[in-house]
Amino acid sequence: MAVDWSSLYAQRLARMGTSAIREILKVAQSPDIIPFAGGWPEAELFPIEQISLICEAVLNERPRESLQYGLTDGLPLLREAIAGYMATRGIPAKAENIVIVSGSQQALDLMGRLFLDEGDTVLVENPTFLGAVQSFNAYGPRYVTVPMDDEGLCVDEVERVLAHERPKFMYLLPTFQNPTGVTTTLARRKRVVALAREAGVPILEDDPYGALRYSGEALPTLAALDGAAQDMDPEQANVIYTSTFSKTLAPGLRLAWVVCPSALAGQFVMAKQGADLHSSSLSQMIAYEFLQRDWLDDQVERIRSTYAARCDAMCQAIADYFPPEAHYTRPEGGLFLWVTLPEGLDTAEMLQDAAAHKVAFVPGAPFYVHGGGQNAFRMTFASVPADIIRQGIQILGGIIREHLARLG
Amino acid sequence: MAVDWSSLYAQRLARMGTSAIREILKVAQSPDIIPFAGGWPEAELFPIEQISLICEAVLNERPRESLQYGLTDGLPLLREAIAGYMATRGIPAKAENIVIVSGSQQALDLMGRLFLDEGDTVLVENPTFLGAVQSFNAYGPRYVTVPMDDEGLCVDEVERVLAHERPKFMYLLPTFQNPTGVTTTLARRKRVVALAREAGVPILEDDPYGALRYSGEALPTLAALDGAAQDMDPEQANVIYTSTFSKTLAPGLRLAWVVCPSALAGQFVMAKQGADLHSSSLSQMIAYEFLQRDWLDDQVERIRSTYAARCDAMCQAIADYFPPEAHYTRPEGGLFLWVTLPEGLDTAEMLQDAAAHKVAFVPGAPFYVHGGGQNAFRMTFASVPADIIRQGIQILGGIIREHLARLG
Repeated sequence: MAVDWSSLYAQRLARMGTSAIREILKVAQSPDIIPFAGGWPEAELFPIEQISLICEAVLNERPRESLQYGLTDGLPLLREAIAGYMATRGIPAKAENIVIVSGSQQALDLMGRLFLDEGDTVLVENPTFLGAVQSFNAYGPRYVTVPMDDEGLCVDEVERVLAHERPKFMYLLPTFQNPTGVTTTLARRKRVVALAREAGVPILEDDPYGALRYSGEALPTLAALDGAAQDMDPEQANVIYTSTFSKTLAPGLRLAWVVCPSALAGQFVMAKQGADLHSSSLSQMIAYEFLQRDWLDDQVERIRSTYAARCDAMCQAIADYFPPEAHYTRPEGGLFLWVTLPEGLDTAEMLQDAAAHKVAFVPGAPFYVHGGGQNAFRMTFASVPADIIRQGIQILGGIIREHLARLG
Repeated sequence: MAVDWSSLYAQRLARMGTSAIREILKVAQSPDIIPFAGGWPEAELFPIEQISLICEAVLNERPRESLQYGLTDGLPLLREAIAGYMATRGIPAKAENIVIVSGSQQALDLMGRLFLDEGDTVLVENPTFLGAVQSFNAYGPRYVTVPMDDEGLCVDEVERVLAHERPKFMYLLPTFQNPTGVTTTLARRKRVVALAREAGVPILEDDPYGALRYSGEALPTLAALDGAAQDMDPEQANVIYTSTFSKTLAPGLRLAWVVCPSALAGQFVMAKQGADLHSSSLSQMIAYEFLQRDWLDDQVERIRSTYAARCDAMCQAIADYFPPEAHYTRPEGGLFLWVTLPEGLDTAEMLQDAAAHKVAFVPGAPFYVHGGGQNAFRMTFASVPADIIRQGIQILGGIIREHLARLG
């Protein structure tokens, strides 16, 4: 007799569920679809030859460090190098403030593990990155949401929320947000950092795309603003910062990092021990050598120039082919652009038509934790050449017009 | 003002705590210590040249699969290859029964996440692998323990426990157990598999060392026995099986796998999505190519012959240098050997003296979830050359005699 597994599962399974995005990515893997859906970087830009050179060198010169068990907090050389890299971005950090994790997704999971009891509150942007919600959901929090507008997070609303709520932390993605592509302005950044500190509520700043700016002026991260207000003392930080090598080197390395006060770093390490002991040693050596050889800036420049052209191509194609009722964000960087259609249109339904015409995007609803967003959708331009972007947008434009016509 | 982080932590942190083993491994990293403590494989045996050849080939020929995001359940080619490998070991599995995970530690964490609500019961061996306890503790279970003797798990006691307890699962390490090195006999294997099925209690079989047998006859895994009793239908399995590339290829790859019915595999995938999205693509390509090129058997043979000689060397040195009051297991494989001293001796205290004389081992107490084991300790022979093993055991023998003399 087969085991009735479902009778054995923990209660948390009821609130977990498969990510809508991951399911969509499966569809988007079909080779003949125009992939505006996944947040995948352009594989053509992976620094393959450099990684190959590094593999040869480190397996020859440092085979033990590349293949043996390592410390849970990460390869000391890499932590040191990342601390130095953070300093160039105005974020105060020593090696003891850095924890290497297996992708930002693990940083999100460990945040939940460290801070969230069932029923605890997390403040999130609305819409927000749904992968974060999926990680947090395993720990059973409730969410309070703060809307996003064209200037980013609506800080007035943060202030109103903090007057009567005490979230365990705020999860914010202020730079080229996933899913909207919007960047929170400097004034709002300063204010949310100050509000969080006054309220004693830490911020988790997720910054996977920060290096990928195509236009406009670079803004300091929340972590940098918070650090500057605290004499650049990493031990006084109220912002926990996470970034990743997934969008600059390669996502398959599964490598990201967390910056936080050293006492908290110790708790991350303790939680990570039980999760996966440590992140891939070989991935860590590759990232370390990449930084050490000073190859990162050039690599980021290659990515930026390609993505910038594609971002322009997508905005231009939208202007040419989408009906005027379609509003869209014009991202200054990152991977994503957000389209809002008139109320009453259902982009999940529209996706069926789009997929039939070999174009994929992500419907907006999953990014809203309390409902809404049915009339919006997310697209990425990063992994699609400009001429294909034009084709895909033209097709989508036709589908939107059809659905608008049906709306009457 | 610095944030008071401890006021924000989730309640589960109180029961987590840093693994004693990981702390000891930090000490054992000192280059001048004789490392009988950590369960680290011998780095000299890593197939460095082969991995280097593979990296060159896959980055050249399959750069996208090696570096891009992948599916959460793992590289399809690798899942297929592992399913085939499992078949050679008598374990029924198709690709859909395989989930690739980031080391066995992640398999343990995901087991907790899928099955354990706070207060649920897990049946564990006594002593048991403390890394498993650390993973499970995040989910707040209680433990019922079943003693180990020289023939392995005491199944009579399992039967007694199942008469009045209903564990969510049994966590068993029947082959060259960590920490004792003991292998559960065939008769007991058959019985525990049958008992578990009758009681409707799944078994998690942890089998990191199964390929590393030095003497005695190969025994079927619990998964193979369970499969044979169910017409080799993987969908009927009551044993969830996990094994790893850490002891055969290299632990730094952080690569292991789970074998289970496909519906349960889907739940593992869902839980893993929120944990780390997927395991390193490059590590997965390396493991796949290693299997594909049929290099694994030769690699395992190299490891076996080296470890077998070291195991012999340690047993011989113990016979020569330890006092007759020291009882020890004679493992037929794996990495570990377990020493039991007379009651009243405290091996944690003894470790201080040993470390001062540049020898490290792991005291026994942390392997017992309900206390005990103060007079026992675990040693590995795997990563220490035979002549150094003799030196270290001679030193330890002297320390044990001193402590015995003090006991009077």
